[in-house]
Amino acid sequence: MRLAQLSERSGITTATVKYYLREGLLPPGRRVTATQSEYDESHLRRLRLIRAMTQVGRLPVTTVREVLAVVDDGSQDQHSRIGAAVWALPHGNEPTADDPAVAAAEHTVQMLLDRVGWSFGRLAGPDSPAYRKLVGAVAELHRLGYPCNVENLLPYAAAASRLAEADLDLVESYDDAEEQIEAAVACTVLYEPVLLGLRRLAEAEECNRRFGTGS
Amino acid sequence: MRLAQLSERSGITTATVKYYLREGLLPPGRRVTATQSEYDESHLRRLRLIRAMTQVGRLPVTTVREVLAVVDDGSQDQHSRIGAAVWALPHGNEPTADDPAVAAAEHTVQMLLDRVGWSFGRLAGPDSPAYRKLVGAVAELHRLGYPCNVENLLPYAAAASRLAEADLDLVESYDDAEEQIEAAVACTVLYEPVLLGLRRLAEAEECNRRFGTGS
Repeated sequence: MRLAQLSERSGITTATVKYYLREGLLPPGRRVTATQSEYDESHLRRLRLIRAMTQVGRLPVTTVREVLAVVDDGSQDQHSRIGAAVWALPHGNEPTADDPAVAAAEHTVQMLLDRVGWSFGRLAGPDSPAYRKLVGAVAELHRLGYPCNVENLLPYAAAASRLAEADLDLVESYDDAEEQIEAAVACTVLYEPVLLGLRRLAEAEECNRRFGTGS
Repeated sequence: MRLAQLSERSGITTATVKYYLREGLLPPGRRVTATQSEYDESHLRRLRLIRAMTQVGRLPVTTVREVLAVVDDGSQDQHSRIGAAVWALPHGNEPTADDPAVAAAEHTVQMLLDRVGWSFGRLAGPDSPAYRKLVGAVAELHRLGYPCNVENLLPYAAAASRLAEADLDLVESYDDAEEQIEAAVACTVLYEPVLLGLRRLAEAEECNRRFGTGS
């Protein structure tokens, strides 16, 4: 397909598509004339992935480029690439290291991970953005004096485990290796607001169920 | 305690505390002299709640005021107030109504809710911010062509249900009625990054477990 059709099918303006091409987020098409290139389904998929990260994940273009570099890194085996791409997704501000609440939070998180037996292999660990984000969030709960010990966190870890199984099932439902990695990144980002919305609705439902304040 | 001690114990500067007093987010203290007021534990709790919403939830002050108005509304019974306060928490941008992807997403969400049997009583429903946010997130998945049917959503709804039970257990662990409502709002916001961080770590763990790319 030509640029105009790529724009139409992706719902992204030609100006923005050209910008992504210039910035190297979208690989160039196959040149057919001096002024025209041919694009294929892989370009369409890449545009959808870029849009998931920029529009829903609100990531800056420089960060999107870093994540895509991992997605495109052919030097790692397929499944390492899925894990590495999700790892590379940034996740809010990192906590400052010299904060005593952060040290206490790191202890809590490590006790939790020991308890649930997560080891990650080389796919995550204390340096990963997700781990730092979790430590920062637990530190904030400690700092504000709301309960957040290992017992409070266990139901969250159990829920996250079950969701990860569903997420990886979804990723593996794609046959193509490239599509699997793209789906891992896109669905990690796109299902976040789904999860947060459902949690709030479930709280309303549980409130209604427990206290019968309903209709 | 005096303003200086309130600032010290909350970790919020006196200038910011005065700003919250001026804006009506923090109720005035008990006047003891012409220039000094006395504050108590309820002021400290309120400051922590404001901080949860502004720093972690990134809500603007006008929105914080709206949520606090629900928290402070004594005309409703206790448990309605918990549900209403969580309902009042905003949740990102609302989807536009005339988008065909939104209509399809509403259908998917309604099928999901029928399937899991959530009715909410009068605590939530198609007008609540959480419901609108969920519809918007599902519409974005549809629009970008990633899978998001009822079967994909069921594990998310199941996880949300279990978390809501844990959340309400935590809320009910507070004896005081005011503290329960404040904890419901604060923990709804503060546990969101915990949940998202744990989901990413669980994805790395599941990737490692399933494909053995580890260590």
